Amino acid sequence: MNTIKLNMSRRIRRTPFTDKVEEYGVSGFTVVNHMLLPKSYKATLEEDYWHLRKHVQIWDVSCQRQVEITGPDSEKLIQYMTPRSIKNMEIGKCFYIPIIDENAGMINDSILLKLDKSKFWISVADSDVLLWSKGVAIGLGLKVLINEPDIYPLAIQGPKAESLMVSLFGEKIKSIKFFHFDVFNFQGVEHIISRSGYSKQDGFEIYFSGFKKGGQLWDSIWKAGEKLNISPGCPNLIDRIEAGLLSYGNEFNLENNPLECNFGKYCTENSEHNFIGKNSLEKIKKKGIEKKIMGIVFDGRVCASTNIPFPVYTKNKKRIGQITSCIYSPRLKKNIGLSMILKNYWNIGQEVIIEVPDDIEREGNVSSLPFD
Amino acid sequence: MNTIKLNMSRRIRRTPFTDKVEEYGVSGFTVVNHMLLPKSYKATLEEDYWHLRKHVQIWDVSCQRQVEITGPDSEKLIQYMTPRSIKNMEIGKCFYIPIIDENAGMINDSILLKLDKSKFWISVADSDVLLWSKGVAIGLGLKVLINEPDIYPLAIQGPKAESLMVSLFGEKIKSIKFFHFDVFNFQGVEHIISRSGYSKQDGFEIYFSGFKKGGQLWDSIWKAGEKLNISPGCPNLIDRIEAGLLSYGNEFNLENNPLECNFGKYCTENSEHNFIGKNSLEKIKKKGIEKKIMGIVFDGRVCASTNIPFPVYTKNKKRIGQITSCIYSPRLKKNIGLSMILKNYWNIGQEVIIEVPDDIEREGNVSSLPFD
Repeated sequence: MNTIKLNMSRRIRRTPFTDKVEEYGVSGFTVVNHMLLPKSYKATLEEDYWHLRKHVQIWDVSCQRQVEITGPDSEKLIQYMTPRSIKNMEIGKCFYIPIIDENAGMINDSILLKLDKSKFWISVADSDVLLWSKGVAIGLGLKVLINEPDIYPLAIQGPKAESLMVSLFGEKIKSIKFFHFDVFNFQGVEHIISRSGYSKQDGFEIYFSGFKKGGQLWDSIWKAGEKLNISPGCPNLIDRIEAGLLSYGNEFNLENNPLECNFGKYCTENSEHNFIGKNSLEKIKKKGIEKKIMGIVFDGRVCASTNIPFPVYTKNKKRIGQITSCIYSPRLKKNIGLSMILKNYWNIGQEVIIEVPDDIEREGNVSSLPFD
Repeated sequence: MNTIKLNMSRRIRRTPFTDKVEEYGVSGFTVVNHMLLPKSYKATLEEDYWHLRKHVQIWDVSCQRQVEITGPDSEKLIQYMTPRSIKNMEIGKCFYIPIIDENAGMINDSILLKLDKSKFWISVADSDVLLWSKGVAIGLGLKVLINEPDIYPLAIQGPKAESLMVSLFGEKIKSIKFFHFDVFNFQGVEHIISRSGYSKQDGFEIYFSGFKKGGQLWDSIWKAGEKLNISPGCPNLIDRIEAGLLSYGNEFNLENNPLECNFGKYCTENSEHNFIGKNSLEKIKKKGIEKKIMGIVFDGRVCASTNIPFPVYTKNKKRIGQITSCIYSPRLKKNIGLSMILKNYWNIGQEVIIEVPDDIEREGNVSSLPFD
């Protein structure tokens, strides 16, 4: 089944924007980092996709919790947690970082923000990086303070995002380059705003500070966005898969190393710095990986992934992978999916069979990522 | 709102029993430890409550993930993670343990199982204790192996649980005392079975090993249970609150210390052992806590908690707490709730006002726990 009732309790945390999200017609949620993430509104996934590509949307992505690390050893700790060198990272920059364990298993793929020399935020996917980093720090006896601050990201995504943001925060917003951030004022409170987001379109993320004024921020954005045809939205599965954006827990998890996830470029080659999992990662590099994430395209009736992956076979029935996220792209006019695929079957065009539930087997091909 | 659609993806993991749970009519889920937990079937909460008190139920509680810790330093690590002394813990015993951070904040309330001298399972509530314990171990350089094994607890709860279990696993099951476990065979595979469960009724938890044979285990139990009027079930909110059983993330979280949660009895007094948060906990003990979890009873229209806690005031409008879980007890014939309550208002019978959404204020009283 694709959806079922979600029973609510305080444990599944609301956000500063949940009241607004409900008022604006949310129809489905998922749970990320013990917090509600809207997954659908009134529009169909396809309507939402076309809207996102043409206009501007407001997304409650508060579930991207921040792990704030401050103190004299903060840089040391973070550097020890990731294979990506942060030696030359500047204040005001966002780094995409794999966080791995002693076996080089992926704990999280996060966005690191350097706020100051000794102040960082790790903006995390769905796992308790707060506990991981606190545990490592306590074990090592490092001088750091680690907590989850009252910061709730609100994303403004779509080609008209810049225009909307200028009307609220002034021309200065234009100077923010992709994966950079700056500080802006809203009702007397300073907020970090970065040029980033979990879509292929242009956009920004407002790291909203505080809780009570969330509704006011939403209303201000909505008012400024009406003439731009703003709509409430959320990460769109079609846009995400087309862009080859991965999702922790879906495409990969603790069982997978960063090379399998195509994160080799975020693992600094011949790095001088020591990090958890360095030996394991070097061994894996030397030996070569056995599987990695590839795209799969296939025709036939419109498909959408559920919580049961679709097995992927060769034509002579050897199982070589499983599609973990999949959707029909109305623009590419075919089904597109993401699958960890065994070595020897990475050739673009490789013919595969996909076992789709309640249906005949589908013929498809291995594809590069992103899809276009 | 109480319920809404939950959108499914692989990230919200299925269990070995999810196929059966769906076949037997699950109508709502929640998410715990990145895994589905059934929250309702066809029966109303009240029907389910009466059934649980009279008969026997089968619960998919696979989301109680195990953190397996083995190796020469396993006992040392676990002892360092909890204020409860495990010095005299015997193999075959279950210990309820608070796990706390350096500030004595609750990371989890777990059941610890000692499988062998150097092999433990921590059966966890909703936070990534796997990452916490791995982080601490790596930081300290301890000789341990930590992983999440393929173990999926299935609970058999209700007064007829023993009778059902005897028919499947033999008379030996009767010898298991509360919070003890033993090893039993099912289809050639050894399984840990403990006398425990998240209800006030008698019951067992089968730590099911493997994934593929989950459906067969379910079917065997169902067949043996038919004459006992077995039903599919899940932790029942009425039974849970009556029993004063707390829920991590609902009644308490990282912001709370174990004394506020009435877990003082699990924090060994004048303990010789060192543990994370020991200094903080001793300071808190010396100073005395400012709030703790109490019961609240109130009359009026039937109430059920949502994801927005109900504020609790004194008669002269001083806010003294918030009800985080609440339900109408058809047996006690009143609404019962759990609330962290400020010091000076712990007297049983203390008059309070509860602000219930979409309703007039209700008058109630502070109560001891459990409710009867």
